[in-house]
Amino acid sequence: MTSDIRILIASKGNPAALAEGFKKELPEAQIFTDLAALDRGPVPYVVAGKPDPGVIASVPGARLVLSLNAGIEHLLEPGAVPEGVEIVRLVDPAMTEGMSDWCLAVVLSWHRNLPTYRADTKWTRRTEILSQDRIVTVLGAGTLGSRVARLLASIGFQTRVWTRSGRAVSGTESFAGPEGLRQATTGADAVVNLLPLTKETENVLNAELFARMARGGFVASAGRGQHLVDADLVAGLDSGQIGSAALDVFRTEPLPQDDPLWTHPGILVTPHVAAPTQAGSAVRIMVENIRRHRRGDPIPELVNRVRGY
Amino acid sequence: MTSDIRILIASKGNPAALAEGFKKELPEAQIFTDLAALDRGPVPYVVAGKPDPGVIASVPGARLVLSLNAGIEHLLEPGAVPEGVEIVRLVDPAMTEGMSDWCLAVVLSWHRNLPTYRADTKWTRRTEILSQDRIVTVLGAGTLGSRVARLLASIGFQTRVWTRSGRAVSGTESFAGPEGLRQATTGADAVVNLLPLTKETENVLNAELFARMARGGFVASAGRGQHLVDADLVAGLDSGQIGSAALDVFRTEPLPQDDPLWTHPGILVTPHVAAPTQAGSAVRIMVENIRRHRRGDPIPELVNRVRGY
Ligand SMILES: NC(=O)c1ccc[n+]([C@@H]2O[C@H](COP(=O)([O-])OP(=O)(O)OC[C@H]3O[C@@H](n4cnc5c(N)ncnc54)[C@H](OP(=O)(O)O)[C@@H]3O)[C@@H](O)[C@H]2O)c1
Ligand SMILES: NC(=O)c1ccc[n+]([C@@H]2O[C@H](COP(=O)([O-])OP(=O)(O)OC[C@H]3O[C@@H](n4cnc5c(N)ncnc54)[C@H](OP(=O)(O)O)[C@@H]3O)[C@@H](O)[C@H]2O)c1
Repeated sequence: MTSDIRILIASKGNPAALAEGFKKELPEAQIFTDLAALDRGPVPYVVAGKPDPGVIASVPGARLVLSLNAGIEHLLEPGAVPEGVEIVRLVDPAMTEGMSDWCLAVVLSWHRNLPTYRADTKWTRRTEILSQDRIVTVLGAGTLGSRVARLLASIGFQTRVWTRSGRAVSGTESFAGPEGLRQATTGADAVVNLLPLTKETENVLNAELFARMARGGFVASAGRGQHLVDADLVAGLDSGQIGSAALDVFRTEPLPQDDPLWTHPGILVTPHVAAPTQAGSAVRIMVENIRRHRRGDPIPELVNRVRGY
Repeated sequence: MTSDIRILIASKGNPAALAEGFKKELPEAQIFTDLAALDRGPVPYVVAGKPDPGVIASVPGARLVLSLNAGIEHLLEPGAVPEGVEIVRLVDPAMTEGMSDWCLAVVLSWHRNLPTYRADTKWTRRTEILSQDRIVTVLGAGTLGSRVARLLASIGFQTRVWTRSGRAVSGTESFAGPEGLRQATTGADAVVNLLPLTKETENVLNAELFARMARGGFVASAGRGQHLVDADLVAGLDSGQIGSAALDVFRTEPLPQDDPLWTHPGILVTPHVAAPTQAGSAVRIMVENIRRHRRGDPIPELVNRVRGY
């Protein structure tokens, strides 16, 4: 079979399963799972997990990189994807729902003190604060953060969002820029991080931010490990400025077995399970983007290399 | 000061604080906190917590009982409130929000396996189910249940509600009556009980209902302890038919220290804290109802003695 829809799957995950999915959804395509198996003909489409450096750059005739992830910071490293090759990140309603499930679960579990009740085997009645009396700040209100913020607001929380553009999210208060970050986090009872990793957002969860929050507050991060200054979080927990935290992402993944984050009593570690890529729906979305590209239609969610996301 | 707005506060909780609240909101009223202190004049309004049997019946000229609780089963016991005296239950948006906070917290914590991750200090990735792939059934969709059901649906869960009347709740599927209960709970991954306690609803959470649920499901109850057949829940957990449960209400409260529910690993006990009465807002609502009664305006949330709630 010869086809001009040629796709390389550059993923260490399960390339064979993805290839099966593409064969079903796009039978006219020619699928490769190994760079070494390519002939000289052009391969316009590269499905990218986290391939080794140089892999994408050596694909002949590449035009569009379809990321298997929502976060694409690794594809913007120097030399990873040649200039002129576009990158489309994964935006999948199933992933968005998984992320709101995780964020709401950790925020509400903190809000209603479930771990405390779980550990207590006596009838100790505490005064529970209402959601309307708590401020929750969501950092990043794009595909993922805007849904989380909207749901938090509809549950009742005083919800603030921080973005680059100051975009409006219904039921929430919007902030933008460095001064907006200060305002958005001042007095916050909880901060939920759903930013992409860029030069501007690296280390955003640091001692200065924690110090502005209400004492004993809660920090949740499902963006990237590099957003968090781990030592600042541990110091914040140990001083009582931070009450507890939930982390899904880490500087090194899997989180090394001897990392103190594992056993700190104030930290819930989940192993990057908040919103994993679901192969079935991801393939359908990538196929739709390939069709758009072939028709010359605009592709949503193209990465802006200048912004870095 | 003489007034015809005379109110007896029949509560063992903190009658003095309630009396203060009434004096502030309704300065023209005459407030009593002790049956023995009443003169012979009529006392049309009785604010009722859970007074001893006979107290309300001995108030001269009582016309309206204002319950400090949303659940009023104790006021319908024979002789508790004389025929012809009306009962208005407490409906307070703050209570409604507290209840949705509790229900969402326990459902989402179960849904995202937070206790499992908390106990695990290894990088064990599990496949997390999306809310759209889970069925949650809310028993009772009145003031409290309808809000919980609407929010569960907006988070993404396939949400079913069971009521007496079959009332519609947006985003959910409605069921009514005994056959409706069978349909609503068949295959349910979670059941959340927010029914009032009546002859019809007593023991509704029993082995037969648990057996109809999806295997390994979740049960949450914040209605009344008498809704649950405790032994059936423990048997369900021990067989694996039920995966875990969260209980806020018990047949005996405080839950006796030697009750096996305290230490069962599958059960989260909270000490009737889901949605406690908030004195401040409750007084304002009761005052508004007294004003309505004096103007001859209809009072919302009057108890229907035939229905039992
Ligand atoms: N843990 C997991 O399982 C998991 C799964 C998926 C994704 N993620 C992470 O979640 C991130 C967000 O995904 P998404 O799909 O929601 O991304 P997105 O749609 O691109 O949204 C990014 C948001 O961050 C804001 N932002 C970016 N740079 C900023 C800056 N310098 N200052 C303030 N706000 C800034 C953007 O502002 P504007 O609205 O103004 O553009 C936007 O609101 C991903 O990049 C990935 O790292 C984690
Ligand atoms: N744990 C706590 O902190 C706490 C706090 C407050 C209240 N509660 C409990 O929550 C209960 C519910 O409060 P609420 O304010 O939501 O009451 P509500 O507004 O009166 O609602 C009761 C709901 O139950 C349904 N129902 C009653 N009998 C039924 C039957 N036989 N079959 C099917 N459905 C039936 C009603 O159906 P219809 O819609 O058809 O009338 C209605 O939807 C209270 O009675 C109390 O026991 C607990």
